Amino acid sequence: MAEAVDLKAIGTRPVRPDGIEKVTGRAAFGADLNLPGMLYGKVLRSPYAHARIKSVDLSKARAADGVLAVVAGADFPDAGRNDLAKNVIARDKVLYHGHAVAAVAAKTLDEADAALDLIEVDYEVLNPVLSLDEAMAEGATLVNENQHTNGDTSKPASNIAAMQKFERGDVEQGFAEADVVVESEHRVPTAHQGYIEPHACTATVNEDGKATIWCCTQGHFEVRSLTAAVLGERVGNIKVIPSEIGGGFGGKTIIYLEPLAVKMAQMAGRPVKMMMSREEVFRATGPTSATWCKVKIGAKNDGTFTAATAWLAYEAGAYPGAPTGPGCMSVLAPYEVPNLLIEGNDVLVNKPKVCAYRAPGAPQSMHAMECAIDELARKLGMDPIDLRLKNAAAEGTQAPYGPTFPPIGLKECLQAAKEHPNYTSPVPEGAGRGLAVGFWFNIGMQSSAEVRISEDGMATVMEGSPDIGGSRAGMALMAAETLGIPYEQIKAHVGDTESTGFCNVTGGSRTTFATGMAVVQACEDIIAQCKQRAALTWDLDEEQVDWVDGEAVPKPGVNADVKPLSLANIARSAGRTGGPLLGRASLNAQGAGASFSVNWTDLKVDTETGKTDVLAFTAIQDAGRAIHPSYVEGQMQGGAVQGIGWALNEEYIYDKDGVMENAGFLDYRVPVASDLPMIDTQIVEVPNPSHPYGVRGVGETPIVAPLAAVSNAVRDQLGFRIDDLPLSPPRVLAAIDERG
Amino acid sequence: MAEAVDLKAIGTRPVRPDGIEKVTGRAAFGADLNLPGMLYGKVLRSPYAHARIKSVDLSKARAADGVLAVVAGADFPDAGRNDLAKNVIARDKVLYHGHAVAAVAAKTLDEADAALDLIEVDYEVLNPVLSLDEAMAEGATLVNENQHTNGDTSKPASNIAAMQKFERGDVEQGFAEADVVVESEHRVPTAHQGYIEPHACTATVNEDGKATIWCCTQGHFEVRSLTAAVLGERVGNIKVIPSEIGGGFGGKTIIYLEPLAVKMAQMAGRPVKMMMSREEVFRATGPTSATWCKVKIGAKNDGTFTAATAWLAYEAGAYPGAPTGPGCMSVLAPYEVPNLLIEGNDVLVNKPKVCAYRAPGAPQSMHAMECAIDELARKLGMDPIDLRLKNAAAEGTQAPYGPTFPPIGLKECLQAAKEHPNYTSPVPEGAGRGLAVGFWFNIGMQSSAEVRISEDGMATVMEGSPDIGGSRAGMALMAAETLGIPYEQIKAHVGDTESTGFCNVTGGSRTTFATGMAVVQACEDIIAQCKQRAALTWDLDEEQVDWVDGEAVPKPGVNADVKPLSLANIARSAGRTGGPLLGRASLNAQGAGASFSVNWTDLKVDTETGKTDVLAFTAIQDAGRAIHPSYVEGQMQGGAVQGIGWALNEEYIYDKDGVMENAGFLDYRVPVASDLPMIDTQIVEVPNPSHPYGVRGVGETPIVAPLAAVSNAVRDQLGFRIDDLPLSPPRVLAAIDERG
Repeated sequence: MAEAVDLKAIGTRPVRPDGIEKVTGRAAFGADLNLPGMLYGKVLRSPYAHARIKSVDLSKARAADGVLAVVAGADFPDAGRNDLAKNVIARDKVLYHGHAVAAVAAKTLDEADAALDLIEVDYEVLNPVLSLDEAMAEGATLVNENQHTNGDTSKPASNIAAMQKFERGDVEQGFAEADVVVESEHRVPTAHQGYIEPHACTATVNEDGKATIWCCTQGHFEVRSLTAAVLGERVGNIKVIPSEIGGGFGGKTIIYLEPLAVKMAQMAGRPVKMMMSREEVFRATGPTSATWCKVKIGAKNDGTFTAATAWLAYEAGAYPGAPTGPGCMSVLAPYEVPNLLIEGNDVLVNKPKVCAYRAPGAPQSMHAMECAIDELARKLGMDPIDLRLKNAAAEGTQAPYGPTFPPIGLKECLQAAKEHPNYTSPVPEGAGRGLAVGFWFNIGMQSSAEVRISEDGMATVMEGSPDIGGSRAGMALMAAETLGIPYEQIKAHVGDTESTGFCNVTGGSRTTFATGMAVVQACEDIIAQCKQRAALTWDLDEEQVDWVDGEAVPKPGVNADVKPLSLANIARSAGRTGGPLLGRASLNAQGAGASFSVNWTDLKVDTETGKTDVLAFTAIQDAGRAIHPSYVEGQMQGGAVQGIGWALNEEYIYDKDGVMENAGFLDYRVPVASDLPMIDTQIVEVPNPSHPYGVRGVGETPIVAPLAAVSNAVRDQLGFRIDDLPLSPPRVLAAIDERG
Repeated sequence: MAEAVDLKAIGTRPVRPDGIEKVTGRAAFGADLNLPGMLYGKVLRSPYAHARIKSVDLSKARAADGVLAVVAGADFPDAGRNDLAKNVIARDKVLYHGHAVAAVAAKTLDEADAALDLIEVDYEVLNPVLSLDEAMAEGATLVNENQHTNGDTSKPASNIAAMQKFERGDVEQGFAEADVVVESEHRVPTAHQGYIEPHACTATVNEDGKATIWCCTQGHFEVRSLTAAVLGERVGNIKVIPSEIGGGFGGKTIIYLEPLAVKMAQMAGRPVKMMMSREEVFRATGPTSATWCKVKIGAKNDGTFTAATAWLAYEAGAYPGAPTGPGCMSVLAPYEVPNLLIEGNDVLVNKPKVCAYRAPGAPQSMHAMECAIDELARKLGMDPIDLRLKNAAAEGTQAPYGPTFPPIGLKECLQAAKEHPNYTSPVPEGAGRGLAVGFWFNIGMQSSAEVRISEDGMATVMEGSPDIGGSRAGMALMAAETLGIPYEQIKAHVGDTESTGFCNVTGGSRTTFATGMAVVQACEDIIAQCKQRAALTWDLDEEQVDWVDGEAVPKPGVNADVKPLSLANIARSAGRTGGPLLGRASLNAQGAGASFSVNWTDLKVDTETGKTDVLAFTAIQDAGRAIHPSYVEGQMQGGAVQGIGWALNEEYIYDKDGVMENAGFLDYRVPVASDLPMIDTQIVEVPNPSHPYGVRGVGETPIVAPLAAVSNAVRDQLGFRIDDLPLSPPRVLAAIDERG
C-alpha cells in the first residue's frame, strides 16, 4: 500500500469528468432519451392499500386512440415466489396504495392517461395492515396468507417474515454486573431517499427480440438480471444502458418500470418511455423502513459496558426484505460488549416494499442505542466521548456479527472529536449539544474494469458502476496514480452491460473500494504489458524492467544504456511491440473496511413553536484514504443533511386507509440549503489494508450518527428526552406540553 | 490449428447478428443520428479543377439567417505537410473540381444552402492536369510546385510523386531465353467503389472541449486519429462511434466531413450533422486510380516463364498516395518468374485524391498482365489454365515483393477450375470465354477484442472493426467454436473508440483474420480463467484441468471424481471463484495469408450495339477457411460484380476543364441484378497456418480477376483484343469499326 506522502494524484481535488456536462445541462438523465416513434407508458395504480383483484378488463383501453400496448399482470410469466415481479405488477392481490395493476403505452402522454381511465379493475377490498404494532399483534390481518416466519410452515402464517439473532456471552449475568443500566424504546418513521430525479426508462426491443433499456439506476447489471427474471428472459438478451443519475441513495437499486416498458415495446414494436411523477415515486417506490427499537445497556461505574440488548422491528412493506440484518449488525458494532443479544424482525405491512436507503437499517437501530448510551453517560457523569473511547472497538475487536476488525479508525475519530474546536468550545447559550457515533461495515462484491491506452498515451478507464458521487473522478485519480500519468489524460466512463465487465450495484459504499480496486488491477495489467514491451525494445528480460513514475526503466543493477520509456512512448510504438495496450481486471472484492464516524451538533429548539435550528454540525469520519477529498467531504455533508432531515422533519404520513398524505416535496419536508449551517467535516485516514490505496467506503456512514446526535442535542437543551423521531414541531410541542 | 472435421460452429451459415435489424430498417447508418438542437452543415466546393485561392470572405454567410458557424481553411491549424488536412479543406489552392473551400452550419439545410451562396471566393484559375500522359509529359503544369519525386529535391519538381521498383534476376537475359514474348499496354479508367450510402457524420463537442463523432466509416480509430491530426487535437480528446455502414469497399477509410463538423459544432455549441449528396460523393471523395500499364512477358515453348516486366502509372489525384505499391506487388505475384522488373509511378493530377478500392491497385496491374498471359497462351497454343499451372506460385515460391509463400492455394484453385463443369463444358455458340487469376496478399495489423460472460453463461464479443461483410457473424462463430457454446448465445458488437481496444481499419481483408484472431485469443483468456475457476472448485492445480467441448474437465489421468463444469456453470458461480469472467486480447497480427482466385466468364458481345451480355461467371477462391461460407461466397460474388462492372461500363468521365460529367448512378453505370447471371462460386480451403482456424482474407481478391477475365472473353469472341477498359458499347463499337 502506497504511503500518502508518495501519492501524486490521489488526495488532489480536480474537477470531476462529468462535472461540466452536468452544470451546463448537457448530461442526459433517465428521462432524456427520445427515440423516433417512441411511445409513452403510464401505470394504473391501486387505489387500495390491500385488496384482492377479481378481474382486470383491458379491452376498452386497448381500443383507445393512440394506444399501442396495454398490459396487466397476466401478460407476464407466473411470478411464483418472485416478489419483485409481483411488486412490478400485481397479480392476484394489491398490497399497497399505488401498487401497479396495469400499464398502457400510447403515442402521447395524454392518450396514455386517458387510456388508464378505461381500464376496469374489480377489487375485493381487504383490511390494510399499517403499523408494526398492528402487524405483530395476535390475530393480525395477514398481508400474505402464505408467509411464515423464516419459512417455517410448522408455525402459523405471520406478518413477521423473518427473525434473526446475534448473541454473545450471558446477557443476564452482564446486566447483573452492571452498576448502571439504561433501557429505552424508540420509533423512527419511514423516510424517503430524497433523490431529485424520478425513476424513468426507455426500452426498445429489436426485431430479433433482444431488448435495450436506457434508465437511471445505481446498477444496470442488476436491472438486466432483475428485468430478465420478471420477463422470463435470458440475461444475455437484455442490454441496459445507464443514464446519468439524479440521485439514488439506495432507491435506484431495484426496478419498477423496466419490465413494463420492455413488454410494451415488444408488443407495440416501438420504443416505450416511462417516467414516474414525483407522486408516484412517493406512493409506489421503496422508502426505508419505519422501525420500533427497544434497547438496554449496562455499564460499570467506570463506564465499562457489561451487557446490551436490542430488539428491533423493521417495516418491510408489502414484501419481505427490510434491512433488519444491517440494523442488527450495526447497533453495537462500535463497541466492545462482552454480553449481548440482538434480535431483528422483518415485518410485512400494506405499504410500498422498502428499498435501500444509505446505510440501510443502521440509522434506525443506532439511533436507539446511541440515545441510550447518551443517557448512560449522563447517569455516569462521563463525557460522551470518554464513555465511547472507553468501550470503542479497535483492531482485534470481534464485531457483534462475527469477524474480527482489522485496523479501524473509531478511536482516531473520537480522539479527533475530543480535540476539535467545535467540541472544546462552549455550547452556545440556550442551545443543546448532542454527539453520536456512526458505523457502516461497507461491502465489496463483484467489479470489473478495462483500461485502454490510445496511441498518444492517453487512457480510457471503463467500468460498470454508475457514478453517483464522483466515482469517475475517483477512478481516474487511482488510474493516474497507478499508471503515473496526469489525471487530465484519463477519461473515465461508465459502460453499459455490453461495453464493460459485470459490476454489482453502486451502493453499500463499494464502488471506490471494489471497482477502484479493479481499475488499479487493470492499470497493473497495462503496466505489466508496458514492462514487457520495454523489455522487448531493450532486449532485456521482463524481470529486469521496473515501472517508476509512469516510465519503464531497467531495474537497479541491470546494465542497460537506455532511456526510460513513458506510457506515451510505449503506446506510440505499441503496434511494433505486439499491438494495442489493453488491460482488464475482474474481482469479487474482499476486505471492505468498516468506516466509523463521530458527529455532534449544537442546536436550539424554539420552545414556543417546536421548530429546531441547527447551529453547527461537525462530522468526523475515517475514509481509509480519501481519493478525492472534496467528494468524501461531500458524502459526509450530504449524509449529515439527510440524517438531520430525518431526525427533525421527514416522515411518511399515512391515513387510516393506508393512503400517503404527504406524497410530494412540499409536504414531505427535506432540508434545503437555507435550513442548515455549513456542515464541518474532518477526514481521518486509517488506511484499509485490503485496498491498494487504503480506501474504505465513505458513502453510508455519514447518515448514521446524525439521528442520535440531533436527539441527544434536543435532550441536552430540553432536559428530557423525546424518544421518537422526527423531532418535528408538533411532536416537540406535544412533549413540552406533556411535561408542563 | 483445428481440423475442419472437428469444427462445430465454423463453416455453418447462421443468420448474421445485424441481419434482422438491417432488413427491417431499424439499423442506424451514418445519417440516422439526430440530436436536439442539431445543425446541418454543408460544404462550399471549388468550381475549378485547379486554382489559387486569393481570398475567402465569410462575413455575409456568417450574418445569414439561421447560420451559427462558418469555416474556411484559415480556421484550421496550419496543414503543413498534412495532405489530408488540405484535402478536407483547401488552403492556398484548390486542386480538383469539388475540393472543399468553406463550410457552414445552419438550423436548416435550406439556410445552409443559402449561406453557401453568400461566401465570396476570389480564385486565380490555373491550367488543370487531367491525365497521366499530360502529368508525366515534359514541362507539364505542376499540380504541386513543391512536389519532387520520392522527395528528392535535387531533381526538378514533378507530378510523379513517387516511383518504386521490384527487380529480380536479369530481365534482358530472361527475354533472350524466351521462345515467345508478348508485350502490351492497357489503360483502366477511374472507378468508384459504388457504396450505396453517402458519407455522413454528426459531431458534438462537450463543454469541456471533448468531441464525439458519429459516422459511417470502415475504421473509427482512424477517423479519430485523422480528425485529431487535422484539428491539432489530442487523439484521446475525440471519441468516434461507428454507425452501421452502407458499403465502403475502401472508400470509407479516410475522412472528409468529420473535422468540419467538429469545428463547427465547437463554434456553434450545438451538434452538427453533415451528409454528402451522391454528386458530392462522386466529385469530392476518392475513387480508385486510373492507370496506364505496359507489360511484357516471355516464355519457353513449354510455357515456362523466363522474364516479365511491368511499367505502371497510377493517378493519385490531387495528393500523393495511389495504390502503386500493391499494384506492383500483385502484378506477377501468382507466378514463378525468374527474371522480373516492376516499376510503379504515383502521379498527381487535378482530380479528387484517390482512395482505397477493394484490393487497391491490383485489378489494374493484373488486368494488364493477365491479358498478356492470355495472349501468351494463345501464341503457345496452351490451355490458359495449363499455362498458369505450369508457372503457378506455391509454398516456397518467393513472391516478387520479397517474402516466401507459406502454403497457398493457387494450384488448388487452378485444378478445381480445370475440373469444374463450367470450364469443361463447351463455350456457347457465338460467345467468348476468358479466364484470369486474381491475387491479394491480405494484411494483418492491429486488433483488439474483449469477451465477457454474463452470469447466465452467454457471451458478448466486443471489438473495434466495423462490420461490412458480416464480420460480427464471423466473430461470433469463432467465439462459439473456441468457447464451445452455441452461436445463438453470443452477441457480437462493434464498440466505439472508448468501448473497445484499438483496431485498425476494416480493409485489406484483415478483419476476419486479425480481429478474428484477437477474438479467439480473448476467448482463450476466458478459457484460462475457467480452468482456473474449475481447479479452485475441484481443489486441483490449474495444469490438471482441460477445456473440452465447452466444459472444464480434469485432464486424462487426473484422479478426480467431479462432473464437468460448463461455461454457464462457471459463470453462475463466478462471484464465488474470483469475480466476473472477462477476457481480452490485442495483437499486431502477423502471417496474413495470401489469397488466390481463378475466375472465368462466358459472354457475348452484340456486335451491332457493342453491348456485352455476361452469360456465366465462375469464381473459385482459396479462403484458407470459410468461417461463414455464405459471406465468403457473398464476397466472391460482390467482387465479381464490381469487377465486371469496371470491365464493361464504369468510368469517371471528365470534361476538358476537369469537371466530372457523370457524377451520379444514372450516368455512372454499375451493374444491377438484372444485368448479370448468378455468379457461381467455389470455395477452396488451404488453411493459413498463421491463423488459429486457418483464415485468409477473402474480401479483396474477388475483384481482381474479373477485369482480365472479361477482357479475355471479349478477345475470345471478337478474335482481337481491345487493350483498354471499359469495354463499353462505344469503345467496343469503335474497335469493331476500326477493324472493319
